[in-house]
Amino acid sequence: MASSFGSLFRITTWGESHGGGVGVVIDGCPPRLPISLEAIQAELDRRRPGQSKITTQRKESDTVRILSGVNEDGLSLGTPISLLVMNEDQRSNDYNEMKDKYRPSHADFAYDQKFGIRAWQGGGRSSARETIGRVAAGAVAKMLLASLGVEVISFVERVHSISTEIDPLSVTIEDVESNIVRCPDLAAANQMIELIEKIRKEGNSIGGTIFTVAKGVPAGWGEPVFDKLEADLGKAILSLPACKGIEFGGGFGMTHLTGLEANDHYYSVANDTEIPDVATRTNHSGGIQGGISNGMPILIRSAFKPTATVLREQPTVDNQHQDTTLTGRGRHDPCVLPRAVPMVDAMVALVLADHALRQRALG
Amino acid sequence: MASSFGSLFRITTWGESHGGGVGVVIDGCPPRLPISLEAIQAELDRRRPGQSKITTQRKESDTVRILSGVNEDGLSLGTPISLLVMNEDQRSNDYNEMKDKYRPSHADFAYDQKFGIRAWQGGGRSSARETIGRVAAGAVAKMLLASLGVEVISFVERVHSISTEIDPLSVTIEDVESNIVRCPDLAAANQMIELIEKIRKEGNSIGGTIFTVAKGVPAGWGEPVFDKLEADLGKAILSLPACKGIEFGGGFGMTHLTGLEANDHYYSVANDTEIPDVATRTNHSGGIQGGISNGMPILIRSAFKPTATVLREQPTVDNQHQDTTLTGRGRHDPCVLPRAVPMVDAMVALVLADHALRQRALG
Amino acid sequence: MASSFGSLFRITTWGESHGGGVGVVIDGCPPRLPISLEAIQAELDRRRPGQSKITTQRKESDTVRILSGVNEDGLSLGTPISLLVMNEDQRSNDYNEMKDKYRPSHADFAYDQKFGIRAWQGGGRSSARETIGRVAAGAVAKMLLASLGVEVISFVERVHSISTEIDPLSVTIEDVESNIVRCPDLAAANQMIELIEKIRKEGNSIGGTIFTVAKGVPAGWGEPVFDKLEADLGKAILSLPACKGIEFGGGFGMTHLTGLEANDHYYSVANDTEIPDVATRTNHSGGIQGGISNGMPILIRSAFKPTATVLREQPTVDNQHQDTTLTGRGRHDPCVLPRAVPMVDAMVALVLADHALRQRALG
Amino acid sequence: MASSFGSLFRITTWGESHGGGVGVVIDGCPPRLPISLEAIQAELDRRRPGQSKITTQRKESDTVRILSGVNEDGLSLGTPISLLVMNEDQRSNDYNEMKDKYRPSHADFAYDQKFGIRAWQGGGRSSARETIGRVAAGAVAKMLLASLGVEVISFVERVHSISTEIDPLSVTIEDVESNIVRCPDLAAANQMIELIEKIRKEGNSIGGTIFTVAKGVPAGWGEPVFDKLEADLGKAILSLPACKGIEFGGGFGMTHLTGLEANDHYYSVANDTEIPDVATRTNHSGGIQGGISNGMPILIRSAFKPTATVLREQPTVDNQHQDTTLTGRGRHDPCVLPRAVPMVDAMVALVLADHALRQRALG
Repeated sequence: MASSFGSLFRITTWGESHGGGVGVVIDGCPPRLPISLEAIQAELDRRRPGQSKITTQRKESDTVRILSGVNEDGLSLGTPISLLVMNEDQRSNDYNEMKDKYRPSHADFAYDQKFGIRAWQGGGRSSARETIGRVAAGAVAKMLLASLGVEVISFVERVHSISTEIDPLSVTIEDVESNIVRCPDLAAANQMIELIEKIRKEGNSIGGTIFTVAKGVPAGWGEPVFDKLEADLGKAILSLPACKGIEFGGGFGMTHLTGLEANDHYYSVANDTEIPDVATRTNHSGGIQGGISNGMPILIRSAFKPTATVLREQPTVDNQHQDTTLTGRGRHDPCVLPRAVPMVDAMVALVLADHALRQRALG
Repeated sequence: MASSFGSLFRITTWGESHGGGVGVVIDGCPPRLPISLEAIQAELDRRRPGQSKITTQRKESDTVRILSGVNEDGLSLGTPISLLVMNEDQRSNDYNEMKDKYRPSHADFAYDQKFGIRAWQGGGRSSARETIGRVAAGAVAKMLLASLGVEVISFVERVHSISTEIDPLSVTIEDVESNIVRCPDLAAANQMIELIEKIRKEGNSIGGTIFTVAKGVPAGWGEPVFDKLEADLGKAILSLPACKGIEFGGGFGMTHLTGLEANDHYYSVANDTEIPDVATRTNHSGGIQGGISNGMPILIRSAFKPTATVLREQPTVDNQHQDTTLTGRGRHDPCVLPRAVPMVDAMVALVLADHALRQRALG
Repeated sequence: MASSFGSLFRITTWGESHGGGVGVVIDGCPPRLPISLEAIQAELDRRRPGQSKITTQRKESDTVRILSGVNEDGLSLGTPISLLVMNEDQRSNDYNEMKDKYRPSHADFAYDQKFGIRAWQGGGRSSARETIGRVAAGAVAKMLLASLGVEVISFVERVHSISTEIDPLSVTIEDVESNIVRCPDLAAANQMIELIEKIRKEGNSIGGTIFTVAKGVPAGWGEPVFDKLEADLGKAILSLPACKGIEFGGGFGMTHLTGLEANDHYYSVANDTEIPDVATRTNHSGGIQGGISNGMPILIRSAFKPTATVLREQPTVDNQHQDTTLTGRGRHDPCVLPRAVPMVDAMVALVLADHALRQRALG
Repeated sequence: MASSFGSLFRITTWGESHGGGVGVVIDGCPPRLPISLEAIQAELDRRRPGQSKITTQRKESDTVRILSGVNEDGLSLGTPISLLVMNEDQRSNDYNEMKDKYRPSHADFAYDQKFGIRAWQGGGRSSARETIGRVAAGAVAKMLLASLGVEVISFVERVHSISTEIDPLSVTIEDVESNIVRCPDLAAANQMIELIEKIRKEGNSIGGTIFTVAKGVPAGWGEPVFDKLEADLGKAILSLPACKGIEFGGGFGMTHLTGLEANDHYYSVANDTEIPDVATRTNHSGGIQGGISNGMPILIRSAFKPTATVLREQPTVDNQHQDTTLTGRGRHDPCVLPRAVPMVDAMVALVLADHALRQRALG
């Protein structure tokens, strides 16, 4: 349960930062879907540490292998797809002090309270390395969605005080990948990169927001009550490390409008069919009404806090709960956002793939 | 699946706005817990329509019955607890026009696209009436939590432009219930009530934010990966009607801080035990680190959009997807927030009760 | 979990023998399916106590109500269908002695060990009354299956030493309902009825076997590993009160054959399609190979033990674990099989309906 | 779902016969449990092909690796335990004919009907190789159970016409492992081995029954309704390849008794505690009443059909559904029972470990 996600398109991830490896089992992927190992690797490369000067310098190639569920022609078999990435660059010595002391705003203390034991090297299961399985599985979900005409694009919208006002609907995946910070607005991107480098040199860290658009989702996906699209997408993204907030469509801003201002009015979209398509003039609803997609683009904004790891001395306690101090050392991401983009993409794709199959089951 | 929530403390809700009734089955409530029918009714009364001049005037007593799972001494049996509320005040005529026309920003269109059929009277399953089961089950979850020393308190923090700056940790349930808008700051509350009345007279609607504090949650509840507390609480609250955003602790605001500013430093809390308690100086983490509670209060802010129902003519389409207009009629909530408070309470309590049992299973 | 069954066509039952009522919530029934209240009631009438001289004389009409999920035209809405039967004939006095003493081979002792509390009147949740929800939900599953050309027929094959050798494939539902013991072979049926009456007069009880045929199941339903059809059907039927064994196709008998004797050979069934149908010469596999249906009839035999309630004095212990004796009193079923027939039908239908939807989700 | 099993102690298996490997992810294993790699390997060695002259001669060492979830001291971390066995001895050529023709009583045809695609080499996911993950995970479940005083012992009770009448409660694991057929009665074992060798030379196959005893299960494990112990154990074992029947305690035989003969009478077991233990004089219930353990040994008999692979020409159809013949070639198990023993052990252990945690969650 705790390590599985989804109901029909269902994944189970496993792996600690400093164990033998990390991976994911995808259960429920429909049969006869072309599975591209290259596309999976490409998504992992977007997530990989050491990919640029503004990410952690930990070097791991994160090369993925498909162990099952895909035949010799590259087609899914309908059986579980097992994806494996072995661990490589493990400098446990960097973490020796962490064995006894709890890093502020990290999971160390909470894990010890929960489990009474902790893989202290590199954070174990709380390491961002855990997201490899998600991103790999999300790549497969994207292949399923692409076959249904659905595309998910996330980008960095704001880093600390620097933001872009670009129209999210105009952003392409090429725009996102045009620079190392994954902001499709080059002017803003350059400022963000500059800021992140400055923060890194200071041993400090910053956060920001990621914006996601899902295009091509047909009206009718989602569920009426607990598994509303906002609920499932919210859970998906909030389960990512460092994510502390999420909003859909108008979100928090919509609470400053009145109903007359906020309502999205339907209109008929002329086409050749007997029953024309329907669209809304505005999209404060973010493509979701009553928890169910209405055919408009799904719009999501998520908040990622500054990385907890900073290279400074901070007060904390040890595992005997005595006051002490701890100084951050080694490699760290001064800003998680560039690497969080493929993670958010993956989680959104996983939710939509799952709901696509759920809708199919309705018949 | 779609109508069930939770893994060990698990509820299943059912019921349309204008069917025979609504209800909930609670599966997994531990045995020998005293279950108070009065306490369940009291929570439903906080959710009930017609409770004050600023809520919808639909009159339903929402009287709850316990049909199973509790013995003659009022103790839970460990078997499913079935709670039932019959429907009463059903003016289907108010909804005749809705049979063919889709209300803007309502679920009507999306439901038709999903199911190819729709209980058009009163919104069917998309009606806020669906939340009766949640609130009733949440009341039982609160009894379980109370036995573990955990208390959940939600209140209205902001209505449109009017907000309170009260310290959330100081708020009691009596403060919340001291006025009809459920804002513990009386000055702000009066302004909010005034604004809601004005908006109601205009046939318009407004939204706002609810703040929730969960006190007494021990360190160690939650899960490392997909079922992080933020993820499960986020899903729970985002599954409520009209909720469009959520944040934990510092939330979106924390993205404007650096790591050095945002990190919560642990310190030892002197007491008589060999291993002292631990607390943090600040609580930007909102009581959750790595998805697991750290013993500090859990802090949640959720955004509720303005009610979609407004008593004005609006452009829309009919079920043949032809342009038309629709004028809102009948009774409506000009602002959902006062009634959303017990709903948010319930969803938070359900998640925490579930994680309490999950932690117990770890041994 | 414990009270829910199925993954996509999912039911949750609730209710004790002597509480307010019993019922079921069906979640996942596809929309726009005609739901017949009469057909549900008819199945419940087959399960009802007091239906004949060979069943318990407890009198309850078991009248079912549909509270949600079906619209005014009798079509399913795609939302949860809640079915309710209120309790009526409750002679708690019959059970006073059971408050302190454990009935042999009943669940009383085990429940007390599990829950530390027990609804001692009538066995609470361990009462056969719990199966009302299953049978009602099974009736809905049968409607879905009928729309797919699938029929489930169970009948009493053996009562103690009296058995029929009738060809299961020839049995119709009318044959089953042609007599009160539900054995389609009238000669055997009369002997069975005579034996059951004799046993009843002796205050004793007997068991036997039920045979089930599911016709029209297309090849391809089921799952390769844990959710094999035998596994899911086995769980379904073994979860019925008093069921202690199950076998599929050749079952235990097939362990006396060699592979050359037991293998089912495929052959091509001439028809007008380019790819002809396939059948097997024999059906030792019982319509299931590798856990997946092969298009042949599914064949199941289940064993029901003699009713634990006998109207004699038996040694036992009390709730202080002291030796004592207990004399069975009141009304009882001398043989559960006639009433178990609709229960088995229901459980098989629920499993097949679930797998029908799971197969649909594959696309 | 389809590839996952259990609710709290939950496993997910993956892997085809001729892919990169096979494995399992165990989610929900409690933290701080000593995990012995040797003990896992020992169980796999009991399942391994080529282990004796009466099993298939396919040579694979089936060496298992622990990739996650266990720390450097061999203690479980409470996070997912990933176990991996790489594939080795793959003679795809043996299977060329199977690409187009369906083996009688194998899963080939049903898989093609279900998925529209099939890993034809070695049966893919329908291969007994799939059970490696189960057996490895079962070994971990046994470690958890051992820490709770529970032991699971399965043995071959009958091969075709040769059976043992040994008292199941007297059998030790050493008795089971004392010979290659895993029948604790040496005289019977020798006859069985002789018969299997004879059958193997004939290119034929045979089946039989396995008997399982679970000792030390405390009263109170199991659930009242759908997740009765018989139901969950039944599903578990019936999900194994070639299993076609199961019974508990008196099973099918009990249907020939009357209630007065079949009932198990409780008696007080003198000891020093205020509330003495309780036992039953007979154990027709097989240790389970009302779906819940009563503290007596759990008794299970399961039926395994003759292996479908026989080295003879048999009529069948090809994938165009045309009549043809197919001659079995290569290596095969003339009798699955010796290798099925550890599989049954594993499935029983998995169910009991799951229910142990579920009971713990009740508090």
